[in-house]
Amino acid sequence: MTATRRVLGVDPGLAVTGYGIVDGDGVAAIHIVSGILRTRAKDTRPKRLASLFERIGALIDEHHPDDLAIEQHFVAENVRSAMVIGEARAAAMIAAASRGIEVYEYPATTIKQTVTGSGAASKEQVQRMVVMHLNLLTAPAPLDASDAVAVALTRLAALRVEAMLTAARP
Amino acid sequence: MTATRRVLGVDPGLAVTGYGIVDGDGVAAIHIVSGILRTRAKDTRPKRLASLFERIGALIDEHHPDDLAIEQHFVAENVRSAMVIGEARAAAMIAAASRGIEVYEYPATTIKQTVTGSGAASKEQVQRMVVMHLNLLTAPAPLDASDAVAVALTRLAALRVEAMLTAARP
Repeated sequence: MTATRRVLGVDPGLAVTGYGIVDGDGVAAIHIVSGILRTRAKDTRPKRLASLFERIGALIDEHHPDDLAIEQHFVAENVRSAMVIGEARAAAMIAAASRGIEVYEYPATTIKQTVTGSGAASKEQVQRMVVMHLNLLTAPAPLDASDAVAVALTRLAALRVEAMLTAARP
Repeated sequence: MTATRRVLGVDPGLAVTGYGIVDGDGVAAIHIVSGILRTRAKDTRPKRLASLFERIGALIDEHHPDDLAIEQHFVAENVRSAMVIGEARAAAMIAAASRGIEVYEYPATTIKQTVTGSGAASKEQVQRMVVMHLNLLTAPAPLDASDAVAVALTRLAALRVEAMLTAARP
């Protein structure tokens, strides 16, 4: 991997969705932008999902990421909360896939392992390591934003591994 | 309710999504179209969701329904399947809400009760009663399509009740 790859990381939630865009060329990673998208509790769920879908689409149209990276959820408190997580995830996945952008999913333990070296790291540890990796003066905040940057960094790390494996092939 | 109201009912699923469009004027209901949308198992989940989103959007753009009606899910086999149901539901909800169309949700027992008189009716009983209500020669098939027509009929029944309550107000 020598060409620069731009990844949009998303930490989806109905009330708050974190996002982070990172460029990587296989050596260094550069933080482009990160933040959160909030939806209004007084709006209906379909309206909140459409708002997420439209604003993630606007981020894609503005920054032209190559890939979208998202946490792969396996657990939820209950069926109801699992369904809501699925709905928010779909808003991000549809925004990407309807524009021809590939979506990559990583389990939370893989993201933490990649960014901090420990699959059991706290969100605060993830945030501190994101600051280190990207050589930032201030941390992406709130934690939803740093989590989104962390999943983007995980995608870039996976690309580095892929590039090494390709180069090592006889 | 004297003006005709057009309702798009959707029975969302990642592999097969049923749809049914029904017009109602408070007296009679007319079946406009129903069927299923399939997605390809070999495609990624984001691509399958984007395909559902785009084809439900195309149905809306072609038939201009006033409302979208969808089953309200409370149960799923496990967290994983709940998340997938949520993702498929979101494809339908975002297609509607991003076009300014209101989404109405009804529990399965309410839909069965409304269409058959029994909240414990089978899908086959629902299908037979859909044929009766709409005076059809052949049943909407497969069962995903008749389930989608049933949720559209439930929305029309709720509108009739609303109209009666409004008329009865002193």
